Amino acid sequence: MPRYKLIIEYNGAPYAGWQRQKNAETIQGALERAFHAFCGGGPRVFGAGRTDSGVHACGQVAHVDLPRAWSPHTIWAALNAHLFPQPIVILGVETVPESFDARLTAIQRHYCYRILNRPTWPGLARGFVWHVAKPLDASAMQKAAQILVGHHDFTSFRNTRCQAKSPLKTLDAFTVTCVGDEILCHTTSRSFLHNQVRSMVGCLKLVGEGVWSEKDLEDVLQARDRKACGTLAPVDGLYLMQVTYPKF
Amino acid sequence: MPRYKLIIEYNGAPYAGWQRQKNAETIQGALERAFHAFCGGGPRVFGAGRTDSGVHACGQVAHVDLPRAWSPHTIWAALNAHLFPQPIVILGVETVPESFDARLTAIQRHYCYRILNRPTWPGLARGFVWHVAKPLDASAMQKAAQILVGHHDFTSFRNTRCQAKSPLKTLDAFTVTCVGDEILCHTTSRSFLHNQVRSMVGCLKLVGEGVWSEKDLEDVLQARDRKACGTLAPVDGLYLMQVTYPKF
Repeated sequence: MPRYKLIIEYNGAPYAGWQRQKNAETIQGALERAFHAFCGGGPRVFGAGRTDSGVHACGQVAHVDLPRAWSPHTIWAALNAHLFPQPIVILGVETVPESFDARLTAIQRHYCYRILNRPTWPGLARGFVWHVAKPLDASAMQKAAQILVGHHDFTSFRNTRCQAKSPLKTLDAFTVTCVGDEILCHTTSRSFLHNQVRSMVGCLKLVGEGVWSEKDLEDVLQARDRKACGTLAPVDGLYLMQVTYPKF
Repeated sequence: MPRYKLIIEYNGAPYAGWQRQKNAETIQGALERAFHAFCGGGPRVFGAGRTDSGVHACGQVAHVDLPRAWSPHTIWAALNAHLFPQPIVILGVETVPESFDARLTAIQRHYCYRILNRPTWPGLARGFVWHVAKPLDASAMQKAAQILVGHHDFTSFRNTRCQAKSPLKTLDAFTVTCVGDEILCHTTSRSFLHNQVRSMVGCLKLVGEGVWSEKDLEDVLQARDRKACGTLAPVDGLYLMQVTYPKF
């Protein structure tokens, strides 16, 4: 069975997350229904990241095995037609060897978190940003974020229901930049724990407000205790931007 | 009666444009209702630009006369509370002299038009961009746009129902830039004719596709004939960004 890699963009707001559920609409569910309508046989779609309910994606990656070969262009056009008008689109389709696994062979996941930092809540970007009214010091956030970069036990920054065997992760990068009235948090790792990005951004917001010092953030990391975590940033501002793989 | 200047952001999609209408929801109507709820007396709100149905704004300006004086902060907080959860927000309120008129004293209006230029239609930005699948040459568009800058008869670029007495306008600037998979068209003028920005962007898209040459665009401008206009860009991608005034 030929295997295909898919690059997917979606507005996560109307969905109960990535993972298929019996009684709720999900991204995986919508994709599998579209594939079934295209070629039958109920193909399963495997995603690189099981994004939570409400999380958006600009470059989620998935793989799917189909009963026979089609050109990537045919799959791209047919799937988008079947998905329409849902806010899920296939940006690209590629033939990949069976050794490619969207989840297991990924080497980096890139997330972006958007904070709208101004007194007034969003008129245009509602559902797409976290609105923080109090002015944030982006350079203090950028400096503090470097504490999180590297190999650490991220227990303080993961949901207690997180199913990962180990809380040890290596954060490759974390940059905080200011663009107009938005603060953009970009972070990269081979993989993240459940709620890790939102927990880290929530804590950095406390640093940006001047409520926490860098030392406070360091103490929370060292505590390895979920109860030490500050704020959990809401889903609205979170985007899975890109997933990278070794050359096949 | 004290006069206030308002800076307003809105998602135009759910509204039948700026201007008050009896049987349709409009931005002006929503604002006037919110003011009436705040202080009674049915104040009228006068906008700098009567944006069409579906056009967005990041910095629409309006003025309003209120029965008595309140602090700008009180008006800002109360109006936003009354407008919520509608996608209209007041970004700023300022006390201005009676000589300030949002429409008549404006010296520049700045519009931005967003084109999403990629094969796949938008999953995330639906309703916020014009999707053009065919690759556009942004630098050819930028070059051609300079033909439109300056003092011209823009008859070819205005809706036949346009109520302006003269089709003569001075375009101060027109820049076309490429940012990721978007093409951003920024244009500035003291005032624009009805549908002028969308008509200009629609014609520039034909240049970007290679269907029109610069000479074709020049001929259309010279024709002073609405029927010569190429395409009218859809409302989705249009944003009133800013309105500027002389110092008072």
